[in-house]
Amino acid sequence: MAGTILALAGGVGGAKLARGLADVLEPGRLTVAVNTGDDFEHMGLPISPDLDTVMYTLAGRANKETGWGVADETWSFMEAIGDLGGETWFRLGDRDLATHVMRRRILDAGKTLSEATDALAGALGIRHRIVPMSDRPVRTVVETDEGPLPFQDYFVRRRCEPRVAAFRFEGIEAAAPSPGLSAALSDPDLGAVVICPSNPYVSVAPIVGIPTVAEFIDARDVPVVAVSPIVGGRAVKGPAAKMMAELGAEISALGIAQHYGTRIDGLAIDEVDAGFAPDIEALGVAVRVAPTVMRSEEDSRTLARETLAFADGLR
Amino acid sequence: MAGTILALAGGVGGAKLARGLADVLEPGRLTVAVNTGDDFEHMGLPISPDLDTVMYTLAGRANKETGWGVADETWSFMEAIGDLGGETWFRLGDRDLATHVMRRRILDAGKTLSEATDALAGALGIRHRIVPMSDRPVRTVVETDEGPLPFQDYFVRRRCEPRVAAFRFEGIEAAAPSPGLSAALSDPDLGAVVICPSNPYVSVAPIVGIPTVAEFIDARDVPVVAVSPIVGGRAVKGPAAKMMAELGAEISALGIAQHYGTRIDGLAIDEVDAGFAPDIEALGVAVRVAPTVMRSEEDSRTLARETLAFADGLR
Repeated sequence: MAGTILALAGGVGGAKLARGLADVLEPGRLTVAVNTGDDFEHMGLPISPDLDTVMYTLAGRANKETGWGVADETWSFMEAIGDLGGETWFRLGDRDLATHVMRRRILDAGKTLSEATDALAGALGIRHRIVPMSDRPVRTVVETDEGPLPFQDYFVRRRCEPRVAAFRFEGIEAAAPSPGLSAALSDPDLGAVVICPSNPYVSVAPIVGIPTVAEFIDARDVPVVAVSPIVGGRAVKGPAAKMMAELGAEISALGIAQHYGTRIDGLAIDEVDAGFAPDIEALGVAVRVAPTVMRSEEDSRTLARETLAFADGLR
Repeated sequence: MAGTILALAGGVGGAKLARGLADVLEPGRLTVAVNTGDDFEHMGLPISPDLDTVMYTLAGRANKETGWGVADETWSFMEAIGDLGGETWFRLGDRDLATHVMRRRILDAGKTLSEATDALAGALGIRHRIVPMSDRPVRTVVETDEGPLPFQDYFVRRRCEPRVAAFRFEGIEAAAPSPGLSAALSDPDLGAVVICPSNPYVSVAPIVGIPTVAEFIDARDVPVVAVSPIVGGRAVKGPAAKMMAELGAEISALGIAQHYGTRIDGLAIDEVDAGFAPDIEALGVAVRVAPTVMRSEEDSRTLARETLAFADGLR
């Protein structure tokens, strides 16, 4: 298809499709805008888990065994922190730590998170544009049956055990899109927006909830297509299905279509979910059936091509 | 001997004798006051090389191969920093990094360097008191033929290559001894001060140059004994001999005695230097000949016992 592509991504699933898009699109044609609602400060360091997952994945350095962090990771730092009685609930690998220390230094020098991301991604040899959704802090708070929890407390420390009632994105009303996301939205050549198969509640919602982004989507003249993160009634990774259950949503590709509603023009669903196509189309959402589970980089490229062709057909 | 002991120490050599003293004295009887003139901020982290060397050595965790840092160290962080285009001239091991990150957190919480040191040493299981010479920053500047250099720039980045003309200790006039050093100096049971075999110019001078410490030494009523860091006309470790040459001092145990002059009552010198004894005694400095090169913990204990017996004889 022609034009530029804006991909909205969270962590692992989003990063895999972003990698596929980066493999099939020239650098000038792709912007990956990444959720920063999961960001937090830990041990004095600014941690941006989704930005890092996208960076490591596009750089070919993602840890495929753990599904997060850097390949060939070592854990001496964390062991020594444990010996010193420090906090070990959020595990920082030795290599990963370099990213956070460098980001701290760049931010301390008065630069923005966008500039820090540019510098880090550039140093990793990434030629496609990866941008935070905003340079202003937006912090996801999970409202649970045990009270409100900062996202990483819910996700890592509490292993998503508390029952979810709602999500809140602190700071989102005042958050402008980052310059890179703004540029992608206002690019006259923009051909489509791709919502990657990331968690709709905690990865995609913070991005599309930024007022300027929400307004863009409401008034869009380019297709917005999403890829369902729910396959065969289960989340490919992470707590999306558990959250859907707790929020009373149907845990299926149809539930995803109901969640996004009129904010998307099309939904790519997995072959095992083909039976949901009529009900999704009845919502006014076009459907593409495709292999959506990405087990290899070739899978990512295949899904990227399918998604782009799908969006192209909706223009 | 009776009474408490105050040991003044820099890095490796000082730490080895401190270890010996810690092995032969009960915890309540020893305070090790450590040079902080080499301290600096690097990558946003507060690095205290001498405090760390003393801590690691007393905890039995010193890296005996490198002579600095922690045993069983790994270097993934530094490799990743290099990949990201960061500074790699000052090498921070993965385990060592935990100490600096924890120190940063403690200092950021409004605590002093003394409190940070207590917490870290305590976590490492050290029962003897290790204290920084001061909680106020004192920064060693090396005046060289290439201009003034901050200590770590001279020592690590430039590998002591520039020719030394003088040393300056920025902040020393305003530096009070740390509470632990003050307490040791004013302890009515203080039996002796031991100047460990550390570099006299850059490890010991900053400690004894703190006004209150200098006044104590001038008016002392307990013996101050030093152990010569120069053995057989060479520094056991580090740039002391090169500095002595550049400053026009005699590179020998006698040169050390001339340097300390009336600030010490006795100097322990190595067996190979026994011939200097008459000239040193002629300066009014008592001499003890002992095996001063510490190759093992048993050597450290032997030298500690010799030094304590020597000081006891000078009371």
